[in-house]
Amino acid sequence: MSIKVGIFGYGNLGRGVEAAIAHNPDMELCAVFTRRPPETVKLRTAGVPVMLADEAKNMTDKIDVMIICGGSATDLPVQTPAIASMFNCIDSFDTHAKIPEHFEKVDAAAKASGKVALISCGWDPGMFSVMRAYSESILPDGSTYTFWGKGVSQGHSDAIRRIEGVLDAKQYTIPVDSALEAVRSGISPELSTREKHTRECFVVAKEGADLERIEREIKTMPNYFADYDTTVHFISAEELKRDHSGIPHGGFVIRSGKSGLENENTHVMEFSLKLDSNPEYTSSVLVATARAVVRLNREGASGARSILDIPPSYLSPKSPDQLRRELL
Amino acid sequence: MSIKVGIFGYGNLGRGVEAAIAHNPDMELCAVFTRRPPETVKLRTAGVPVMLADEAKNMTDKIDVMIICGGSATDLPVQTPAIASMFNCIDSFDTHAKIPEHFEKVDAAAKASGKVALISCGWDPGMFSVMRAYSESILPDGSTYTFWGKGVSQGHSDAIRRIEGVLDAKQYTIPVDSALEAVRSGISPELSTREKHTRECFVVAKEGADLERIEREIKTMPNYFADYDTTVHFISAEELKRDHSGIPHGGFVIRSGKSGLENENTHVMEFSLKLDSNPEYTSSVLVATARAVVRLNREGASGARSILDIPPSYLSPKSPDQLRRELL
Repeated sequence: MSIKVGIFGYGNLGRGVEAAIAHNPDMELCAVFTRRPPETVKLRTAGVPVMLADEAKNMTDKIDVMIICGGSATDLPVQTPAIASMFNCIDSFDTHAKIPEHFEKVDAAAKASGKVALISCGWDPGMFSVMRAYSESILPDGSTYTFWGKGVSQGHSDAIRRIEGVLDAKQYTIPVDSALEAVRSGISPELSTREKHTRECFVVAKEGADLERIEREIKTMPNYFADYDTTVHFISAEELKRDHSGIPHGGFVIRSGKSGLENENTHVMEFSLKLDSNPEYTSSVLVATARAVVRLNREGASGARSILDIPPSYLSPKSPDQLRRELL
Repeated sequence: MSIKVGIFGYGNLGRGVEAAIAHNPDMELCAVFTRRPPETVKLRTAGVPVMLADEAKNMTDKIDVMIICGGSATDLPVQTPAIASMFNCIDSFDTHAKIPEHFEKVDAAAKASGKVALISCGWDPGMFSVMRAYSESILPDGSTYTFWGKGVSQGHSDAIRRIEGVLDAKQYTIPVDSALEAVRSGISPELSTREKHTRECFVVAKEGADLERIEREIKTMPNYFADYDTTVHFISAEELKRDHSGIPHGGFVIRSGKSGLENENTHVMEFSLKLDSNPEYTSSVLVATARAVVRLNREGASGARSILDIPPSYLSPKSPDQLRRELL
């Protein structure tokens, strides 16, 4: 029985979900919901209807799981509880401090509707969270480190674009090699923000703009750049388009911990991602996990979940028997 | 409520489990079972009884989970079904071809007793299996590679020791750096056995033994060495003891896969382990997963499982709420 998927929101993430569904023969894209006039939205998959977001409520018997592709700041806090009151669903909510509150609201909605709603999925939160959970459970006496990059930070790029005299910008977060090596050695170093990551900015300035002031405003910007060693390069709009139009990302979760009655042995667990496209990989995680959401609901479960609550086998289209034979 | 653990078999793995329990404050070692005369077995934990294996049947109301530390060749095929007929339990059965058969037998025993029995846990099978499952589910169009080492292979060391004229030996499996780099680049290379790993042997020979013959016998041994580039070093018993008495191991699971409607983006997921002590890390995985076994059984589950069937959160002593706040 194929899994019927709806996409709610058609930006970078929604397009990534559309592509990821095409890689999973047991899944079928049934409809895309948008707040824009549907006739202005062109899908890349033939024969799939684009519908107004408000029409979702008429599609509850045609969609097994809705993949919600809105933003964490204002969309998901409203959208996910609303969708969970009608559909199995999954989102990528990543405002860390508000996850407990979001979970509670979504849980109440999903319990009332008898659906399963999985929140905060992707790679961080998501696969990185999974690795943190396994590694701290296996090595309780140890330290976990997360490094991000090399990759484009959308929020930091946006912050630069808001500076007077800046036309466009792209910011890369880069993990510091010597910090990675120190962590991998198992010595559990204390690392400051500045010691873990550097920031590199490619900026297109208006003609005649005061480049020195722009560079100073970037480097001293609180929260975003002041605590980091930041490099600023001024380049042309053509160069930005030619060399920096991708959205690569990645990162590392590393735990080192001790075993033995006298802590005599050290072990290092490392998980890393190198991603050509941040939204397409996030979408790939969402689609595999959406399969688990449907399966849980078919078993009778309801309420909110995170990926930490899901057995790895539930993400796979293979049977438990096949997984044991092929992967164990 | 603390979890009462029994250890069945007290070799390297059993001693590792004893040490791992000491790192987990919610767990308590209640008894060690052995086939040797109990008075000849000295535990490193004070106040814990050593009992004959046959006495286990009298301890069913005192132990929440039995961690079975026998060998895969002859012990576990008999021990795990027998223990599962009385206790929640977990083993590290790693004879890959026989996993389906082992699972069936253990499943029947555990269903009959109403207990949960988790088989084939550790790092491979175990955490490496988990990573293979996640990564192939997330990136269905791709290739997964497993590399082992650098580490000591017990089976290969034993095979060398059986050669006429050999007093002692230690064999290291070493992944080939250029193969690792090719895989990490995302090109999905075809790699032969010889291209993935090399084997390095440290051999203590009898005085006057024919070293040339020993080296030839090692390098041409079918299955074990013939398909690899193998290096043989003859060293003294003192050097073997001084430089090669540890049991380090480790390895890599790497998947590269494509996303996008035209496979235009490549992603690489990598999980690696660097372990000072193979049995102590395996034990650490067993102990964390034993926690999940008890929790599943307290929820009413019975039958056989693998770690692929277990949510990551079940390995942790933390509540789902705490995990969401701290790790998601």
